[in-house]
Amino acid sequence: MSYFRDNIDKLAGYTPGFQPDCGDVVKLNTNENPYLPSPNVTKTLQNFDLHKLQRYPSPIGQDFRKAAAKLNGLEPENILCTNGGDDALTICIRSFCDKDRPLAFPSPTYTLYEVLAKIQNCPVIEVAYPADLSLPTEELAATNAKLTIVCNPNAPTSSFISPEKIGELATKLKGKSILLIDEAYADFAEDNCVRLISEHENVIILRSMSKGYSLAGLRFGYLMSNPEMIDGLMKVKDSYNVDSIAIAVAAAAVSDQEYFKSNVEKIKAERASLSNQLRELGFIVPQSNTNFVFAQSVKQSAKSVFDKLVEKNIFVRYFPRPGIDDKLRITVGTQEENSKLIEALKEIVS
Amino acid sequence: MSYFRDNIDKLAGYTPGFQPDCGDVVKLNTNENPYLPSPNVTKTLQNFDLHKLQRYPSPIGQDFRKAAAKLNGLEPENILCTNGGDDALTICIRSFCDKDRPLAFPSPTYTLYEVLAKIQNCPVIEVAYPADLSLPTEELAATNAKLTIVCNPNAPTSSFISPEKIGELATKLKGKSILLIDEAYADFAEDNCVRLISEHENVIILRSMSKGYSLAGLRFGYLMSNPEMIDGLMKVKDSYNVDSIAIAVAAAAVSDQEYFKSNVEKIKAERASLSNQLRELGFIVPQSNTNFVFAQSVKQSAKSVFDKLVEKNIFVRYFPRPGIDDKLRITVGTQEENSKLIEALKEIVS
Repeated sequence: MSYFRDNIDKLAGYTPGFQPDCGDVVKLNTNENPYLPSPNVTKTLQNFDLHKLQRYPSPIGQDFRKAAAKLNGLEPENILCTNGGDDALTICIRSFCDKDRPLAFPSPTYTLYEVLAKIQNCPVIEVAYPADLSLPTEELAATNAKLTIVCNPNAPTSSFISPEKIGELATKLKGKSILLIDEAYADFAEDNCVRLISEHENVIILRSMSKGYSLAGLRFGYLMSNPEMIDGLMKVKDSYNVDSIAIAVAAAAVSDQEYFKSNVEKIKAERASLSNQLRELGFIVPQSNTNFVFAQSVKQSAKSVFDKLVEKNIFVRYFPRPGIDDKLRITVGTQEENSKLIEALKEIVS
Repeated sequence: MSYFRDNIDKLAGYTPGFQPDCGDVVKLNTNENPYLPSPNVTKTLQNFDLHKLQRYPSPIGQDFRKAAAKLNGLEPENILCTNGGDDALTICIRSFCDKDRPLAFPSPTYTLYEVLAKIQNCPVIEVAYPADLSLPTEELAATNAKLTIVCNPNAPTSSFISPEKIGELATKLKGKSILLIDEAYADFAEDNCVRLISEHENVIILRSMSKGYSLAGLRFGYLMSNPEMIDGLMKVKDSYNVDSIAIAVAAAAVSDQEYFKSNVEKIKAERASLSNQLRELGFIVPQSNTNFVFAQSVKQSAKSVFDKLVEKNIFVRYFPRPGIDDKLRITVGTQEENSKLIEALKEIVS
């Protein structure tokens, strides 16, 4: 017999991207930022007052709320701090979904959504993206979901839907479903959906510090919505879900916009260069709005290219899933890392 | 209309202990450790490799697992790292409870259990402790709960049940219910239940770094059980639930047992002295197995004493709940803090 709930027993669990232990590898498989976090982060850690560790943290992470509100033209009451973007997703799914309240999302997208739904034991409604990766608005609006997640820019496709189109979906879902816009990759896009918060009562936006701010190891993210929505979500989060060091470090990183912007610009420039070089090698690479590219392998199977790269200690991401198993998701690395990848691919596909 | 699930709408939410902002207060209300964390913590923060923040952390917090396994005479496979004890409780309730799978616990106890059950929308079965605070084994064994939590030593009573008695309950619950032993305060007791893990397939033990290791602000705890149980719980936790800094800091703190032990001994000595002084003032103070005392106010109502202490900027914990509203939960502070409390009480009760 098992002591676990049936849905947990049946669950395979989420598989995080492979994290190689050895040092001499090119790691372009989990969309981490190739540059160090802001120098403000170092200062914050060096000067951290240890007495703060003795005491419980601010249950709402007030210092970060203030910094994030300022950055996004909002008030602290619009912000909820989370232990990484994953915690933000879990809080939303626990707030809005259960056995009788489904979760919907267009797919392919971030595979964690489905895993979290299974933990919550709520039905999942997947709506396929059309070939042009435009938003399937009517199909999403027609479901009986209580929570609809749109990852924008989307992973693993790197595609982007305009805020206007997302706003149209929010209108259609009003009174029926929350629309959670997962903007984990918004730092690398040309626009975002923050302005939809004031226009739509049912919109929640998710942000992560993992990508644009080089803080994947810190586990910090946040949700933005109207104050009533944030108050409701507060009841579902763990009482002290973010720690004192993380609050201070994340606030310090967000406050250094100069460093952040120059970092993002470097990644965008490398992204353009990497995309072009991949195209020259025969890959089909759509324009990316993220810190990775989603490259279709034409000359060889994506799986074969992936395996040959692993042999050279170069790690990218391959998804053995129909519809995307002909493509590789490649994180934009440093110029040196990207060059090593291109040199390896030249050997592999020639 | 509300977008939230009904059970979330109805929920009042958990009220964390008051955290005064101003500096000049005596804060004995949330069972924090009055001494700084180990010097190893400072070193770990000062020398933390920032490249680790760029990358995702170990999803299982392997460095801490090794340190905690060594400390408890177990293997890393017996350990699951959590984002504070609260995360550990949430993972267990999500693993074992739902609308048809109740949670049981003897009460009075930690009020968060009931809040977490309401978030999960599972029934709660409260079994009252008898006046002598011994374990109501038969009543707990007779419920249809799928998860039974015993906080041991218990908060807010500071009482302790022997591992033998807890083991008897585990035997009776075998095949029916998980027995989660919440040992958040075990560092201040003379014994603990770790040995029950190898004897009972249905036992899980919770530990916290918040109290004994002075790391309430870090949010770090862990669960101990057999490897199969830990594997199942892994599926329910957030993919990266503990961050790289917290893993390193918690491992450093656990590894400095000399500092930890001398710290705990100081608190135990202060606890004895504080208990005696309170008794001299007419309070009834049972022997404490925790870093707080649970003192019954005889000369005045507990609420009145609490209010008068607040006026003097001294904060203890008062629970307006039948059965315990005649008592105050007072954290053991430094000698100086405890003296200030006693001086204030002398004025109040004389």
